[in-house]
Amino acid sequence: MKIARFSSPGEDPRFGVVDGDDLVVLAGDPMFAGYETTGERVPLKSTKILAPVIPRSKVIGIGLNYYDHADEMGQEPPEFPLVFLKPNTSVIGPGDAIQIPPVEGEIHFEGELAIVIGSIAKRVRAEDYVDVVFGYTIANDVSARGPQENDGQWARAKSYDTFCPLGPYIETELDWTDVKITSRVDGERRQSESTEQMIHKIPQLIEYVSDIFTLLPGDVILTGTPAGVGPFEAGQTVEIAIEGIGSLINPAKNRT
Amino acid sequence: MKIARFSSPGEDPRFGVVDGDDLVVLAGDPMFAGYETTGERVPLKSTKILAPVIPRSKVIGIGLNYYDHADEMGQEPPEFPLVFLKPNTSVIGPGDAIQIPPVEGEIHFEGELAIVIGSIAKRVRAEDYVDVVFGYTIANDVSARGPQENDGQWARAKSYDTFCPLGPYIETELDWTDVKITSRVDGERRQSESTEQMIHKIPQLIEYVSDIFTLLPGDVILTGTPAGVGPFEAGQTVEIAIEGIGSLINPAKNRT
Repeated sequence: MKIARFSSPGEDPRFGVVDGDDLVVLAGDPMFAGYETTGERVPLKSTKILAPVIPRSKVIGIGLNYYDHADEMGQEPPEFPLVFLKPNTSVIGPGDAIQIPPVEGEIHFEGELAIVIGSIAKRVRAEDYVDVVFGYTIANDVSARGPQENDGQWARAKSYDTFCPLGPYIETELDWTDVKITSRVDGERRQSESTEQMIHKIPQLIEYVSDIFTLLPGDVILTGTPAGVGPFEAGQTVEIAIEGIGSLINPAKNRT
Repeated sequence: MKIARFSSPGEDPRFGVVDGDDLVVLAGDPMFAGYETTGERVPLKSTKILAPVIPRSKVIGIGLNYYDHADEMGQEPPEFPLVFLKPNTSVIGPGDAIQIPPVEGEIHFEGELAIVIGSIAKRVRAEDYVDVVFGYTIANDVSARGPQENDGQWARAKSYDTFCPLGPYIETELDWTDVKITSRVDGERRQSESTEQMIHKIPQLIEYVSDIFTLLPGDVILTGTPAGVGPFEAGQTVEIAIEGIGSLINPAKNRT
């Protein structure tokens, strides 16, 4: 089932289930209120699709979690997941502009499969991971390589406002073990790889990060990017597509 | 004025203004609802003082922001503030136990002056910083040195649950330019230095970080720690005192 968070002109955000070209409108946030419907159907084209979730606490990133990406970054794949944080203020939705700040160096896209946590989760065992997952969506872990190198710490490089596009939908039933992630800049393919190549798999990631932090409903874990990351510029459009979920498309512009 | 967030047995958290040995109870969260009082007075001793704020979005840390601390860590003072993030799930209040996870290496206290943001703040100019500050409190930026060295990234080392004690009060009128920070472990003094020794000052920090992220009301900026950081262990008690605010005291225990 694909869940969208959307707004219609003049209305507050609502949630809906994708059904063909329509959204079946839900009575509340399905993460908390279940799947009761209002009976209303809205054509997808008449709505603005928003980021499917705004994390209550944090977006957790995992660095160097595909062998070929670690290789292209000139790094050894880490023995344990390499954790970093992006704040909820960096999240934008499909179609929203990635705003490029006036920093030195290239701005890179990183296409990633994102886990949306559905319940309070602390010290979850890998074998129980499904109990705390609400579903999966697509993320672009936008990264400013200049600040990333200058600071050593990645917080600034990955946390600028608009640096975490999420969406378009949360798929609650994805078999995440072997889906293809494809990234395109202005339609030209740059990343194309299966999640099969992930080093630390989703059950292990959830066990590892929930041992550090309490995860809150709506927290998001980015599972790492495959090889092929690269620059994009103002005026270009970045698309991250994941089989079974959809396509997350964002234009880029210079921050004004 | 000193603002406390507190709970009385069987009641939800409320806010109050410290008046001698009492709290003058406020009608709502003063950050949003102002200073209307309920007319009730509660003896401080009858309450549990809680973390004075739970950030809606993030705790922002500034690394190596005192000359002598950069020196003791064997690092050059950074030309620009070195930014890292701690999640809101790491926040605890006065008297709550710092829970030491089973990781290698020492666990260090870092006594710090913390800024509590009072409004939505984006690209604030240094000279306007007072417009977005609600007040100041005390923080202990607890850090696990093993994970900090192993990961290179500081997110895990500084983000374990309970690794961000805050409190006891928010002082809304602090002159932060020259107040002494004193840290003690089991009563023995370990840090003692004035905020005068801060490298990047509060107006500049707010300008710098609000250029990266939108700050939300309740977000917290830790302004860095002076020299003298060091280990503490389960069974010990860590106190961070700042002139004009009070004393933040937390026992430590091993996580069970």
